[in-house]
Amino acid sequence: MTERPLPALTGPVEVVGAGLIGASIALVCRRLGLDVVLRDTSAENLRTASGLGAGRSASSHERPQLVVVAVPPAAIPDAIVAALGRSDAVVTDVGSVKAAPLAAVAGRVRPTDLARYVGSHPMAGSERSGPLAASAALFDGRPWAITPHDVAEPGAVGLVESLVLECGASPRLMAPDEHDRAVARISHLPHLAAVLVAGRLAAAPEEHLALSGQGVRDVTRVAASDPALWQQILEANAGAVLDLLGEVRADLDALMTAVADDAGADLVEILARGNAGTAAIPGKHGGPARPTRSVFVSVPDHPGELARLFGDAGEIGVNIEDVHIDHDPGRPVGLTELVVDRGRAEHLLAALESRGWTTHR
Amino acid sequence: MTERPLPALTGPVEVVGAGLIGASIALVCRRLGLDVVLRDTSAENLRTASGLGAGRSASSHERPQLVVVAVPPAAIPDAIVAALGRSDAVVTDVGSVKAAPLAAVAGRVRPTDLARYVGSHPMAGSERSGPLAASAALFDGRPWAITPHDVAEPGAVGLVESLVLECGASPRLMAPDEHDRAVARISHLPHLAAVLVAGRLAAAPEEHLALSGQGVRDVTRVAASDPALWQQILEANAGAVLDLLGEVRADLDALMTAVADDAGADLVEILARGNAGTAAIPGKHGGPARPTRSVFVSVPDHPGELARLFGDAGEIGVNIEDVHIDHDPGRPVGLTELVVDRGRAEHLLAALESRGWTTHR
Repeated sequence: MTERPLPALTGPVEVVGAGLIGASIALVCRRLGLDVVLRDTSAENLRTASGLGAGRSASSHERPQLVVVAVPPAAIPDAIVAALGRSDAVVTDVGSVKAAPLAAVAGRVRPTDLARYVGSHPMAGSERSGPLAASAALFDGRPWAITPHDVAEPGAVGLVESLVLECGASPRLMAPDEHDRAVARISHLPHLAAVLVAGRLAAAPEEHLALSGQGVRDVTRVAASDPALWQQILEANAGAVLDLLGEVRADLDALMTAVADDAGADLVEILARGNAGTAAIPGKHGGPARPTRSVFVSVPDHPGELARLFGDAGEIGVNIEDVHIDHDPGRPVGLTELVVDRGRAEHLLAALESRGWTTHR
Repeated sequence: MTERPLPALTGPVEVVGAGLIGASIALVCRRLGLDVVLRDTSAENLRTASGLGAGRSASSHERPQLVVVAVPPAAIPDAIVAALGRSDAVVTDVGSVKAAPLAAVAGRVRPTDLARYVGSHPMAGSERSGPLAASAALFDGRPWAITPHDVAEPGAVGLVESLVLECGASPRLMAPDEHDRAVARISHLPHLAAVLVAGRLAAAPEEHLALSGQGVRDVTRVAASDPALWQQILEANAGAVLDLLGEVRADLDALMTAVADDAGADLVEILARGNAGTAAIPGKHGGPARPTRSVFVSVPDHPGELARLFGDAGEIGVNIEDVHIDHDPGRPVGLTELVVDRGRAEHLLAALESRGWTTHR
């Protein structure tokens, strides 16, 4: 990472685009006591964000230390160029694709100005959008990629890193095109897989859908996102996305052949590679995934019951790594799945049972 | 459904295969006070299941009312044929594919014996397997498909329905091949999509994986399953699975074309169909999905904190529909997502904030 000490974020900070991400960054900076200036083409967003305490509207003579461009994907290059032209500030953007906007900007500004631009991308979000959904806690514990180009000023890179740390996120430095390949793999491909599976549900017979369990819900959950936003994201990362989709199509052909030809060994190999992939995703705090075990508990479906379960789990002293509440039609009782450290599962089960919970071992 | 009243389940119940599903069904029947007989090729499974109170080992002269075949997929047809030959009992199996086993059995038994066979399939399970993982609560609130063939005795169908209801599950009557098409769509396809996405993570660069968020975890979660078991399932449902994979491959080709040709309208249409699909999955208690909203709260990562959050939510009186605890590397604080009825979200947020929680609107 950048050498210490990093440049201090002292403000003013100018946020262009007072939506979910921009307003959340603005709230972090206001909590630090910094002067925050807001710009937005929507007067209503501006009014709402200011009203939430995210900052003040821009006057005609602003001299920010840092400008954060947080506008929709298609508007990003123009907004970066305009910001570089307005002052001597360091400029970052928070778009989810980095190489194409950088190329567009580089063709339009002088190298001495380009040196002040350092792209970045917080891996954070919400199903909601707009300033009302904003929160200074949005970035807590999240990865945040910083993607400087070859001739970015080290001080500019350091200042963006300071912002990332103040937001409570984990900075990850990487080249813009490497970032785009990364998000194609760990964000865009999963999103498209969810879309394709969900697309097979849209006109499905009711009796098919009635058998739905947790698996299909998990796989398709992310497909409930804004199509217009994702169109912009995918078009801006078309190259890396197409490369990965091509690899998946080849894998799909191999899978179909293995099933059609009853080629058991080939099929097992494909399934086992899927196993290995799930183990590759990092666990908490950056380490390899620690082995966990799922514990299932019957929980009647009304307020207070789940709280009672978690209260007991808390008293028992076993940390819950993840939770899944099963949604299944027909009954007012569901199974809640608690994912805990493998070595603690038996203790939790025995202790819950002694408190009268119906568990599933 | 079957006309009321249903035949009463009075036992004895014979369970062939004392693994997760078989032993769980046995435990339900023991709780009803029924005589339960266990068979398993593994003496250890038998010993464990009996030790858990799931039943007694079979003697040489058993006359069960109902036989439940719960063996691995490849062994199902032989076990059904053997059960039909041993006594006059009604016989069901709980395999996850119905048409192929039925066809195999029909070719080997007399029609009067076939009339006593009614396949079924509980939509339940666990990442664990074996009798130690069994629980009488496994089927609470789950759908359980019942798939009689054309000449099944109505009394046999009714007896299986009684078993399903005693297990706390929701019976769904359907033809065997319709069932297989249904599970291809809502179980096998999602599983394979997860496997293909996870397959792209298995050998991925660490810096790609480091940016992982909740989306890729949700999409790939189900891929962490037993490859040998899934090989058997997929091979037994090859026809319906290949039909769906062919539809998905065509969708994938259309998607790649839309991205490569920058055909925005086509791309938005594909993404929007994914949206529609997620809304098609039923919500709790069989109704259409009720609109929900996600509420995000910062929760420090140690025992007790999550309990405190749920305790407060319980006192506030808002039912939690779903929970996601975000796993992200680097920081000891994570964001917990609570999914609640949309009309209750503001109330929950305000009340949590007044209790000192850091929320993200």
